[in-house]
Amino acid sequence: MRQLIGLTALAVVVALASATAMAQLSVDDQIKFRQSGYTFMSWNMGRIKAQVVDGDVPYDPAQVQRAADVIAAIANSGMSALYGPGSDEGTGWKPTRLKSEFFEDLDKVGEIAGRFIEEANSLQEVAASEDPDAIASQFNNLARACGTCHDNFRASE
Amino acid sequence: MRQLIGLTALAVVVALASATAMAQLSVDDQIKFRQSGYTFMSWNMGRIKAQVVDGDVPYDPAQVQRAADVIAAIANSGMSALYGPGSDEGTGWKPTRLKSEFFEDLDKVGEIAGRFIEEANSLQEVAASEDPDAIASQFNNLARACGTCHDNFRASE
Repeated sequence: MRQLIGLTALAVVVALASATAMAQLSVDDQIKFRQSGYTFMSWNMGRIKAQVVDGDVPYDPAQVQRAADVIAAIANSGMSALYGPGSDEGTGWKPTRLKSEFFEDLDKVGEIAGRFIEEANSLQEVAASEDPDAIASQFNNLARACGTCHDNFRASE
Repeated sequence: MRQLIGLTALAVVVALASATAMAQLSVDDQIKFRQSGYTFMSWNMGRIKAQVVDGDVPYDPAQVQRAADVIAAIANSGMSALYGPGSDEGTGWKPTRLKSEFFEDLDKVGEIAGRFIEEANSLQEVAASEDPDAIASQFNNLARACGTCHDNFRASE
């Protein structure tokens, strides 16, 4: 598992290094696309949380699986291409909250991104178990991975 | 294929009918989430188009697959829950462009949505062939399915 995360982290760093060449997107478009991806993931995180963590809504295994599929697909989509140089300043749907520290420690970024991807993939797998307690536990692991990035690289509102 | 689309369309209509009970989201949040989903799909449509339709960027089979995976996952996510009654007026990231005609012909909505989902699933499958011409052809089929909804239910900017 540790080696797998290491390789994923390396891939993220390599992708970041070539982001400018590949993106051909304005900084504001990069920001808009990444805000869209995170916001759409947040809808799906919210659906899973309501069903298996908070119990506000009856557990629907098929819907939780579809939500986990979306989160995993977005996590694996190669969003590092949306973090080109200078994209710590700019406005997509709203001004970005990305801290400039992001570009000063890409090893750490890669490690955090790799962990996020692994936890999202695990949630997709665990969703298939249809065991709401196991899904809730893995949901919390993924939420912690999201939080690590927010704590390090996202400014407060 | 036709029967499959018919069943998908039925599922979409049923989901629409129960959207209010399930969503527990404000109209503005429904609009923000669906705008996010479509915008994130548009990034991924753009990546596929650049590589296999326009040829602006070298074809990277793994990246095209990841992009097609995202589009299929979002298409299958159950976005009908984000089209609750009254959500033809409101503001997510920006004011919605959904026409009120959407709620007046849910059979047609279900048919169009079903076609969109089928074409997105097909693109995900065809991406695995690593045949850029076949992917380009299926990309165009999916783009037409998107366009049908825009032509019927999205107001001009």
